Amino acid sequence: MDPALAQLMEQLGRAAREAARLLASAPRAQKDQALDAAAEVVQERAGHILAANRADLDQARDADAARLDRLRLDDARLSAIAQGLRAVRELPDPIGAVSAEWQRPNGLRIQRVRVPLGVIGLIYESRPNVTTDAAALCLKSGNAVLLRCGSESLRSCAALHECLVSGLHSARLPSSAVQLVPSADRDAVGYMLAGMGECLDVLVPRGGRELVERVQREARVPVLGHLDGNCHVYIDRDADVGMACAIAVNAKMRRTGICGAAETVLIDRAGEGTHLRPVIEALLDAGCEVRGDSTVQRVDARVRAAQERDWYTEYLNAIIAARVIEGVEGAIEHIARYGSAHTECIVTENPATAERFLQRVDSAIVLHNASTQFADGGEFGMGAELGISTSRLHARGPVGLEQLTSYKYVVRGRGQLRP
Amino acid sequence: MDPALAQLMEQLGRAAREAARLLASAPRAQKDQALDAAAEVVQERAGHILAANRADLDQARDADAARLDRLRLDDARLSAIAQGLRAVRELPDPIGAVSAEWQRPNGLRIQRVRVPLGVIGLIYESRPNVTTDAAALCLKSGNAVLLRCGSESLRSCAALHECLVSGLHSARLPSSAVQLVPSADRDAVGYMLAGMGECLDVLVPRGGRELVERVQREARVPVLGHLDGNCHVYIDRDADVGMACAIAVNAKMRRTGICGAAETVLIDRAGEGTHLRPVIEALLDAGCEVRGDSTVQRVDARVRAAQERDWYTEYLNAIIAARVIEGVEGAIEHIARYGSAHTECIVTENPATAERFLQRVDSAIVLHNASTQFADGGEFGMGAELGISTSRLHARGPVGLEQLTSYKYVVRGRGQLRP
Repeated sequence: MDPALAQLMEQLGRAAREAARLLASAPRAQKDQALDAAAEVVQERAGHILAANRADLDQARDADAARLDRLRLDDARLSAIAQGLRAVRELPDPIGAVSAEWQRPNGLRIQRVRVPLGVIGLIYESRPNVTTDAAALCLKSGNAVLLRCGSESLRSCAALHECLVSGLHSARLPSSAVQLVPSADRDAVGYMLAGMGECLDVLVPRGGRELVERVQREARVPVLGHLDGNCHVYIDRDADVGMACAIAVNAKMRRTGICGAAETVLIDRAGEGTHLRPVIEALLDAGCEVRGDSTVQRVDARVRAAQERDWYTEYLNAIIAARVIEGVEGAIEHIARYGSAHTECIVTENPATAERFLQRVDSAIVLHNASTQFADGGEFGMGAELGISTSRLHARGPVGLEQLTSYKYVVRGRGQLRP
Repeated sequence: MDPALAQLMEQLGRAAREAARLLASAPRAQKDQALDAAAEVVQERAGHILAANRADLDQARDADAARLDRLRLDDARLSAIAQGLRAVRELPDPIGAVSAEWQRPNGLRIQRVRVPLGVIGLIYESRPNVTTDAAALCLKSGNAVLLRCGSESLRSCAALHECLVSGLHSARLPSSAVQLVPSADRDAVGYMLAGMGECLDVLVPRGGRELVERVQREARVPVLGHLDGNCHVYIDRDADVGMACAIAVNAKMRRTGICGAAETVLIDRAGEGTHLRPVIEALLDAGCEVRGDSTVQRVDARVRAAQERDWYTEYLNAIIAARVIEGVEGAIEHIARYGSAHTECIVTENPATAERFLQRVDSAIVLHNASTQFADGGEFGMGAELGISTSRLHARGPVGLEQLTSYKYVVRGRGQLRP
């Protein structure tokens, strides 16, 4: 690594560690003031932020439309960003909360108290709003954060980062509580993955397959995974046909680019004569490309042939894989083999079949008769979220404020010795 | 790696993954039956187990006394092992418990339900009882476990492992729910650290510095750290002198080989004339070697000079480092710099000083007026434990049954679509 970059990253890490110590005991009012002030500055500096964004868009003009859309800011999106900061301000402060409390026969009084994780490293790609959304959640939960955005959004993210720093300044909190790596050098990611000399407590990667694979290969620090969402909808023989069609179309097509979007629909072979055609045609008619096995292909000439790799694919697009399987057990098997343990849904009117699916499918979120697009911290009533974790450790599903905390045990005695 | 070992490890991994799927939904009665039966077999086969242990002891005869003591089994220790299995049997089954439950305005009913972590890899060293203690906790919490003991205890651990397999067999649970790596080849550890081809969900290392460093360097899989316990006792100016002496001696000397044993005593400079001498002499008189700074050395000729490295050292022996620092702030600073965030204690009669310490010291366990030797799942009333985690993610402090679980969200609807 370039020695100047190494020195820069080391400085960022040390400053983050220092800020984390101060933030851990910052009172709620101070953190809220920083969020409020940052929201105000975002609106005051709208012109400046949009100009920075235009420079990013200019440079990325050869990118595909979806990518440009992710990168683009406008007045409405800036308002949403300011609103997002204010929404986190309204959430309760998780730090210092006593989550359990008991007394031992020897008189020791034990409390489990929420504390921040420490320093969070976030590696993300093109959406500039992640800068403020993530920083707000980390700040409110008493964590310092080191942000590493995609190179194509660096100007936009830097402009938003300035607003956050200004907010921290107003609240007399250290500006190094929220830092943005000011370099597009990919070696910076490597340094973060290596743990930044024990200055990172946890890494949150948010990005495409290439980043995910790099994280799996290189990370030396605990990772809160936000990996792929290869989500399934299983249409059982006992499904209401209308509900099955509506859920399949909503789960796939409401927004195709989010991690809770369905990528495969599984249809019970016992429903081949009743459920298969309506569901597939509803998807096709909604403008979705369907890639099916041979049974599904026979339904409609528009269905293309699915390959083995389709069962693994997170399209994030108006494409769905479709397969006929042997009942709920077949669905459980298929999901265990090909799924990413993110979000899966069963549509059935049979409560016993539903319970079997809900119990046996080992995913962060399992739903009965509801769209996979509900996989979202806001929809869960948890407020803003950093994403949906597919890790099994620490946090699974929506990662909100509470999931960005750890705890410690506080024990109060009067001179007890252990016999 | 030797191809035969590679093949063996791959088989173990696949079998563990398969067993984990079955165990995840095993009812409590079946898991308890396996534990009961294993406890019985341990007592039936006492002669066989002790013979295996004698062979291990023979081969290790050149090791130091502490190591031999850790390795040694006898009738009393075998009874304790059987008793340990029965104690875990009595603990409630954490799996399937609903830890939170709420309804959304749109009618979705959301539950957070405890599920096992999956496959746990445990790397440990010479104590054979870890085999049964860890296996019992993993089994009761619905996890498959792959055990990798130290080479010097392989015969003893294999004999105990046979008892566990026999218990699983009696309960008609897959014997691959608890597997012991049957090879002393150190490459097996490397394969576990690399994640065993996605067959391990979490790794729990329990061992000395060499293992800890290897884990930090090589692990590609989430780790529940049980690293060093460099624990501190801080004697404040407002401490009761008698209590300070009693706690310092108990924290250091009750058992010197456990991770909750104190390794450094910090004395408030304001208590130099009142507290310093009694505490240091109490430790010396209890048979403890004291390594002190220049102020501490002046107290008693028996005090040796502390080096910088002493502040970092986990002696696990009858040695303590002693330093005079500037009040509670000095203690907080010293612990932040040199500590391992395991367990720290303040002795003071001043409640404000105590609260300052309890709030600012960022360790898994912080105690006021109680011995650090209480850092133990049993003493916390949590039942048996796998160890004391110094990780910040997932589990901190004692790792009992609940800490060996993850959760999933179960969502029940009646056809809700996301607008």
